[in-house]
Amino acid sequence: MATVDRWLLPDGIEEVLPPEAARIETARRRVLDLFQCWGYELVITPHVEFLESLLTGAGQDLDLKTFKVVDPLSGRQMGLRADITPQVARVDAHTLRREGPSRLCYAGSVLHAKPHALATSRSPIQLGAELYGDRSSSSDLEVISLMLETLALADVPDVHMDLGHVGIYRGLARAAGLSGRVEQQLFDALQRKAMDEIAALTGDVEPALAQMLRALARLCGGREALEEARQQLAGAPGEVLESLEGLVQIADQLAARYPALPLYFDLGELRGYHYHTGVVFAVFVPGVGQSIAQGGRYDDIGADFGRARPATGFSTDLKTLVSLGNAELVAPVVGVWAPHGDDQALWQAVRRLRGQGERVVQALDGQRREAALSAACDRQLVFEEGSWVVAPLDQ
Amino acid sequence: MATVDRWLLPDGIEEVLPPEAARIETARRRVLDLFQCWGYELVITPHVEFLESLLTGAGQDLDLKTFKVVDPLSGRQMGLRADITPQVARVDAHTLRREGPSRLCYAGSVLHAKPHALATSRSPIQLGAELYGDRSSSSDLEVISLMLETLALADVPDVHMDLGHVGIYRGLARAAGLSGRVEQQLFDALQRKAMDEIAALTGDVEPALAQMLRALARLCGGREALEEARQQLAGAPGEVLESLEGLVQIADQLAARYPALPLYFDLGELRGYHYHTGVVFAVFVPGVGQSIAQGGRYDDIGADFGRARPATGFSTDLKTLVSLGNAELVAPVVGVWAPHGDDQALWQAVRRLRGQGERVVQALDGQRREAALSAACDRQLVFEEGSWVVAPLDQ
Repeated sequence: MATVDRWLLPDGIEEVLPPEAARIETARRRVLDLFQCWGYELVITPHVEFLESLLTGAGQDLDLKTFKVVDPLSGRQMGLRADITPQVARVDAHTLRREGPSRLCYAGSVLHAKPHALATSRSPIQLGAELYGDRSSSSDLEVISLMLETLALADVPDVHMDLGHVGIYRGLARAAGLSGRVEQQLFDALQRKAMDEIAALTGDVEPALAQMLRALARLCGGREALEEARQQLAGAPGEVLESLEGLVQIADQLAARYPALPLYFDLGELRGYHYHTGVVFAVFVPGVGQSIAQGGRYDDIGADFGRARPATGFSTDLKTLVSLGNAELVAPVVGVWAPHGDDQALWQAVRRLRGQGERVVQALDGQRREAALSAACDRQLVFEEGSWVVAPLDQ
Repeated sequence: MATVDRWLLPDGIEEVLPPEAARIETARRRVLDLFQCWGYELVITPHVEFLESLLTGAGQDLDLKTFKVVDPLSGRQMGLRADITPQVARVDAHTLRREGPSRLCYAGSVLHAKPHALATSRSPIQLGAELYGDRSSSSDLEVISLMLETLALADVPDVHMDLGHVGIYRGLARAAGLSGRVEQQLFDALQRKAMDEIAALTGDVEPALAQMLRALARLCGGREALEEARQQLAGAPGEVLESLEGLVQIADQLAARYPALPLYFDLGELRGYHYHTGVVFAVFVPGVGQSIAQGGRYDDIGADFGRARPATGFSTDLKTLVSLGNAELVAPVVGVWAPHGDDQALWQAVRRLRGQGERVVQALDGQRREAALSAACDRQLVFEEGSWVVAPLDQ
């Protein structure tokens, strides 16, 4: 391999250089401080775990995304985390085992063996917040609001949100008595809004239910789509109607809190269907094909971890937030240039300035004053009348 | 596997729960702010790279510590980083390619396939700073000082430092014309201070040099060991004497800066011999068998990355710093308890408080006031005379 190739990074695996790394660090701190202000407690989950812990309750998607290694100490298979949400669910259910609602948050790198989509990163820095132990829509409203505040903090412009509820399709499919295989095929056809396939797959279903399943593909649009759904699904089973009303309630509360936010509903498009159990949501911006933040309710995961707990949460990628956001994240770097030398008075002066939070760069052997500029210094330490004082650089 | 086993973490792989995670986050920020005050710029290196990038210039130790996975996109072997230093050296030499000195720092998780020692973590959070482009001892003094300030910031008590210089042994071995195999055997024997083996291995060496090589095993102790070395090695080749004088200079400068710090010298014990090229140092505390922070000069690594650059730096583990340090890292958590409800005035009041940096936890459906205490709130929002105001919790 040529030297020039040797240091190339794998596709989708990035390194972050100055000053971009400083912007990411600042955004990370601001988001974690925001989570803290909402009562969310930080957890730090490991980068590797035994594979069955990482993949429990997750779909095949996550399995394919997960790098596997064998643990030389135990001989067991481990995975590199590709998603932090299942880890935090494990912490809530198995490690913390708290009574009552629990609010947890995290920020950390994940790795994807395969990219989520062409040319997307395989090494995002996942940020998220999860609320466990409460089944009410107040929790969904809280995590969606927190997601929107996170995007606002990064000043990501032109966001719009998709909202749905997997309980609507799931309830209709259950009432229709669809086999697992047909339910999956119908689900796939709904995602593609493939009307002919949807008609064929619901051919044997009781007519009223078939009609409602077919209607799902067309029940999309603004707030009016929910009114349309209320009419089309009026005869649906109770659990379907409950799901729909839950969705309407959250939509209306969000519209009250964020009147300028465009909301879009799609009762047939079901992100994370295998994983989620209730409301699902995703935020998009123009020009980016993938959602930039997403989440939903996933009550069932608790049982997999030995303790059934209601759960709802969201996640996003810090690198994406920083690259799309307009927030002023770092002030221009300034600093004090200190001359070379091992004089104790100079060392004490440098130390004192740093203790005050000043950035002080000390010249190395042979470095001239011109180096102060490339070190982003705007002032210098000079010896005047018996002591070291800060002076303009051009003095 | 029993359910209870299933969610256990692999040996040496930890998760960090509240409130410990908050302490680690605070320490992380303080250390990165300290690095910034010293002029070090943050880089974020990837968790995986092609194996030959990760292991270039490193010894077999790092190879054994490194988890390997195959990249499904390229079919090439990748490694999970077990050490960030070689990555930062690659960034300096290959990516940034700056003229003149460059100060870089980092903080991130690393993974070890095998633990460094029995019962040590396999998932430390490595923190470190590296100074490239300067061959003088000013750089070594700077990074050692920064390491000591990092430990002071975490308030790690009772630290003492070991200092050495690999140029002394290397220069003597070169002058003695030892074969690679004998040099390695002698090196191993020196680490164990195995006098008989050292005598046997230097049996064929020119007597004056043999005597100096044998003396290395005894040249250890306080500052007086350096005076003893000056006498014992008086007839050594120039490069050996230069190395010794470089070590003396750094030792004396450190003693002037940190008069209370116990310094210990060992000219035969050579940490990271394969990797390092000059001064080497490590900090210990009583009761911990491993060094808690360490580093040294590693000028040769630059050449491996396509560009020879002088380099010196140190690293430590954030989790160790936090567990050993006495620093007050987090203030007691307080907050304002907000009642359940979707009233817009309440929402605006909550939002305003959070915007001021207050921690506000809102009650979920059905949660009573008692829950405020388990949510660590000390005040509450109450509706009085037409507006929401903060009041004591017991009101």
